[in-house]
Amino acid sequence: MSINLQQSMLEEIEVELKRQVARLDQARTKPFHEMLTYHMGWTGEGAGSQATGKRIRPLITLLSVYSVDGKDKGKSIEVNWLHAVSAAAAIELVHNFSLVHDDIQDNSEYRRGRKTAWVKWGAPMAINAGDALFVIANQSVLDLKTHYPAEMVVRAAGILNDICLQLTQGQYMDMSYEERTDLSMEDYWPMIGGKTSALLSACTQIGALLGYANEEKVELYRQFGYTLGLAFQVQDDILGIWGDESVTGKSAASDLVEGKNSLPVLYALEKNGDFAKRWRQGPIPQAEVGAAAVMLENEGGKSYAEKMSAELTQKALGYLNQADPQGEAGEAIRGLANMLLKRKQ
Amino acid sequence: MSINLQQSMLEEIEVELKRQVARLDQARTKPFHEMLTYHMGWTGEGAGSQATGKRIRPLITLLSVYSVDGKDKGKSIEVNWLHAVSAAAAIELVHNFSLVHDDIQDNSEYRRGRKTAWVKWGAPMAINAGDALFVIANQSVLDLKTHYPAEMVVRAAGILNDICLQLTQGQYMDMSYEERTDLSMEDYWPMIGGKTSALLSACTQIGALLGYANEEKVELYRQFGYTLGLAFQVQDDILGIWGDESVTGKSAASDLVEGKNSLPVLYALEKNGDFAKRWRQGPIPQAEVGAAAVMLENEGGKSYAEKMSAELTQKALGYLNQADPQGEAGEAIRGLANMLLKRKQ
Repeated sequence: MSINLQQSMLEEIEVELKRQVARLDQARTKPFHEMLTYHMGWTGEGAGSQATGKRIRPLITLLSVYSVDGKDKGKSIEVNWLHAVSAAAAIELVHNFSLVHDDIQDNSEYRRGRKTAWVKWGAPMAINAGDALFVIANQSVLDLKTHYPAEMVVRAAGILNDICLQLTQGQYMDMSYEERTDLSMEDYWPMIGGKTSALLSACTQIGALLGYANEEKVELYRQFGYTLGLAFQVQDDILGIWGDESVTGKSAASDLVEGKNSLPVLYALEKNGDFAKRWRQGPIPQAEVGAAAVMLENEGGKSYAEKMSAELTQKALGYLNQADPQGEAGEAIRGLANMLLKRKQ
Repeated sequence: MSINLQQSMLEEIEVELKRQVARLDQARTKPFHEMLTYHMGWTGEGAGSQATGKRIRPLITLLSVYSVDGKDKGKSIEVNWLHAVSAAAAIELVHNFSLVHDDIQDNSEYRRGRKTAWVKWGAPMAINAGDALFVIANQSVLDLKTHYPAEMVVRAAGILNDICLQLTQGQYMDMSYEERTDLSMEDYWPMIGGKTSALLSACTQIGALLGYANEEKVELYRQFGYTLGLAFQVQDDILGIWGDESVTGKSAASDLVEGKNSLPVLYALEKNGDFAKRWRQGPIPQAEVGAAAVMLENEGGKSYAEKMSAELTQKALGYLNQADPQGEAGEAIRGLANMLLKRKQ
């Protein structure tokens, strides 16, 4: 039953995303439109469900909407999740705008097994394609006006843009850390807060808002999303070093080769032992990566990150319990959270 | 008197822009904030009024607000232009976001005599700085909620984002034209419509809206701004080839060296004479530029563009007369339009 609900939501999300992106489907800008449909996974080589990604953010948004008891505010509002689909699309568009620009910034040639936009069309065109995705994200969230009072539209658009500013701040920190050798763990949380957690908090916060939750409940949903993002990212950091290649699809310890400032690494840098010395000497080649991972584990980087991941998971699930999502969507959101937090164990 | 009004407006615009950009002035993102304050012309080498640009767009926005007779809608609304200053700032921020990304896309090393953001901080950081300017533009326009009903805020944000999509479309056309040799004049208008006119139309349209103009008057203001933009761009194209170096500050005919698809050039390409043959053979070096400009003039490129510029100027002033801007701000907006349309004659 819950599978059917999620399936319906995912289908409506895809329809809405295509409708929004079709704003560029005009006589003179068809190839421009195609850049966006390619990046979104709908057209070009390798198009299909592998290429689109899981649309987890818009799904969490709609599940949040539908899981709120609309009677919270003392009114008997029948919440129709379909009314919020343009906000769900907006969040997915923001996510994709940031991916297109990230790929240029990180010089990444592949995403989800396909060439990135800048590789196909050059950086100038890809910068512009990312800009267009962000503009369309804003247009999408403003489309809420068809079904919601203007005050709620302004609030949702405000939350979305506040979070986008956090995204740019997280991105700034991430890029500026590349040149720094004096990083510690306190540099970690604001960075992943901006890069990962902020957008997940937008899903649950805007979702609860559009489900007509009261202020207290909106805040609990927001905290759930934010903490879920932190827990997820820490887990991702662990998998990026000690993950099972056959499960993660990335070569093991690839985060060490790429020099990523993950939580285990920052923990070891703060301890300033042998791993820190090696790290500061420059890039770790593939041949040395196994030994480096063992060194990092021996210095406590793995167990510290696992402890943090477990704590954050408990915290996230605690907020979720307090938020008390209702019905079929509530079950689905609990299931999804558990899946995200327990993957690959 | 009118000078004092414009001076007050320009001062309030600058205060508001600084206030908006200060969203990034936080402990961990101070150098990121500095990228924006540098680009905006407030800090770093060469900071000052030469570096900020003229803030013509936000000024036109506030003059539009204040020049509307607030009684249009049958209500006696005393229009306070200061209430609209965050929308004026939003438009200037959009303009600057597009400049930061344009400079990367065009590989431009200098703007207003200063190094561009990507030259100072690298393209990845500059992409992110442009993104942040656009986010802050959206936050600024949503700040209208302090003084305007939510319905008007949603409408203003909607207009702004619709125009931003046109900006990305104009930019796409401009970049894609670089590879094409089959261009004609019908390719010109949609490109400059998106790149130049759209944002000017946002100034006058949003301005009139926030001045509580009726729908008919909002539309006249919009058409005035749009046509003003077209006329201005055609004139800019003429000056870019036949302008007086000592007045324009650019080397004469530099648009020919840069291979810009300006209106005189597209006219000649459509005529397919000697100039067109030469143009299609590749870049025109500085030494050949005088002869190329004469050839283009002889084939009618200059007189055609002058005719179009005169026609568009009449059309723009016609819309302005119909819009009938009132009082001191009305005088100022007429003066500004005449200045923009008659410069360097």
